Amino acid sequence: MTFADASAVTPRGSGRWSARIAPGWDIVGAANGGYLLAMTARAAALAAGRPDPVTVTAHYLAPGSPGEVGVDTEVVKAGKRFTTVTATLAADRPLLRMLGSFGDLEASVGMERLEAGPPDLPPVEDCIPIEPTETFPPPFMGRVELRLPPERAAAWGGAGSPGVEGWFRLRGGEPLDTIALLVAVDAFPPTIFFTDLPVAWVPTLELTAHVRARPAQGWLRCSFTTKFITGGFLEEDGEVWDSEGRLVAQSRQLALVPRG
Amino acid sequence: MTFADASAVTPRGSGRWSARIAPGWDIVGAANGGYLLAMTARAAALAAGRPDPVTVTAHYLAPGSPGEVGVDTEVVKAGKRFTTVTATLAADRPLLRMLGSFGDLEASVGMERLEAGPPDLPPVEDCIPIEPTETFPPPFMGRVELRLPPERAAAWGGAGSPGVEGWFRLRGGEPLDTIALLVAVDAFPPTIFFTDLPVAWVPTLELTAHVRARPAQGWLRCSFTTKFITGGFLEEDGEVWDSEGRLVAQSRQLALVPRG
Repeated sequence: MTFADASAVTPRGSGRWSARIAPGWDIVGAANGGYLLAMTARAAALAAGRPDPVTVTAHYLAPGSPGEVGVDTEVVKAGKRFTTVTATLAADRPLLRMLGSFGDLEASVGMERLEAGPPDLPPVEDCIPIEPTETFPPPFMGRVELRLPPERAAAWGGAGSPGVEGWFRLRGGEPLDTIALLVAVDAFPPTIFFTDLPVAWVPTLELTAHVRARPAQGWLRCSFTTKFITGGFLEEDGEVWDSEGRLVAQSRQLALVPRG
Repeated sequence: MTFADASAVTPRGSGRWSARIAPGWDIVGAANGGYLLAMTARAAALAAGRPDPVTVTAHYLAPGSPGEVGVDTEVVKAGKRFTTVTATLAADRPLLRMLGSFGDLEASVGMERLEAGPPDLPPVEDCIPIEPTETFPPPFMGRVELRLPPERAAAWGGAGSPGVEGWFRLRGGEPLDTIALLVAVDAFPPTIFFTDLPVAWVPTLELTAHVRARPAQGWLRCSFTTKFITGGFLEEDGEVWDSEGRLVAQSRQLALVPRG
């Protein structure tokens, strides 16, 4: 099943959509947060009548499992350039709440000044694929394709700084739209897994993604870093660059660091 | 008038609060975004029954002017550790929409690993105060106290990278709570003003703040950086450190870069 199918939404009238959490998009039983956000944003973009999630924030309320879900949307404001929408994704209970502003990035122009470029990665074919097995890593890795630089793959559980970078595409190179970027920003293993800190999972409390441009097709270069693990929280900052070397998305999530 | 008074909210029942945008909290006629978010978060924290805005996102819909406003809140989910609330601040029309998760940071503990420390600033008394005059800078600067390192103050309109850092406190050293941190993250002049780019204003589309801990009293060290000006947008990432050297807040905003 493609991502387009797995994140499809069907209108039910009055700002309501139905959808289905597809099997295999989970991490240890809970549907991937980027996937749930993408599905919600797809309905919200339709409610907005504007295709691109310029800035969307999700607060995660409960884990999602495969099956029927609904997305209830409310247009907060339809402005000249952006339409702000709030939406709730729910099964038998609310799974996430989203607030986002949608626009049209077709003619995305303006002054350019970049203080940094895309991460320096070995060619895709020299990187290590993360392919799911019966037990490891999670089924979700069968829906996307990740390639980690050999050095990064070797740093798993090592004594390095929290961070990860690599190549991303949807399985089989399925075409990318701006909604798919919401999957890219939450697809990589947590940065903290590349340290020696004894943490088995870092549930996301909140994820915000900014989409700067529509992606060119092909592999995306992604990087994720964490500067501050403190107070029971960590942030994870993501950057996503397309195959033409353009920054297409930025993200930050706040995750919980369970008390060890 | 203190910040506490200027951001006070009065319950009106059924999740509704009234408040007043105080005079003098504006930047060229529009009330400061951090101040509006703080007022909204104050009502939302009361609705949540939890004092600390762990992660709050505001989408700005229209500029605010002095006068009566209302805050309508809706509790999205009351969980074990966090309560998620959405709120709308409105005058004759909606000014901002907020989505946030509130908690109690009294006993904020957990593993600690920091990849960076607070910005290196000269002592407060060696820094340059930004004090409002009739024409420059904006009235808002009379409500807070900012001190910029001499080198940074001299870089205004210069050829440097987009960024600014300095000391912050509420006027007269009024005590700080976690709500006041929402003002700190939006109080400094835009990073782009310290470059030679011809931009007179950068309206905020969205601001997200994460609060990691309750601040110790005293001056806060703040820094703001921008890596990517592209596609008509820029991000501004903030860090706020308290007088005991603890990271108390992180922020990111997405602002528009008007076509020059």
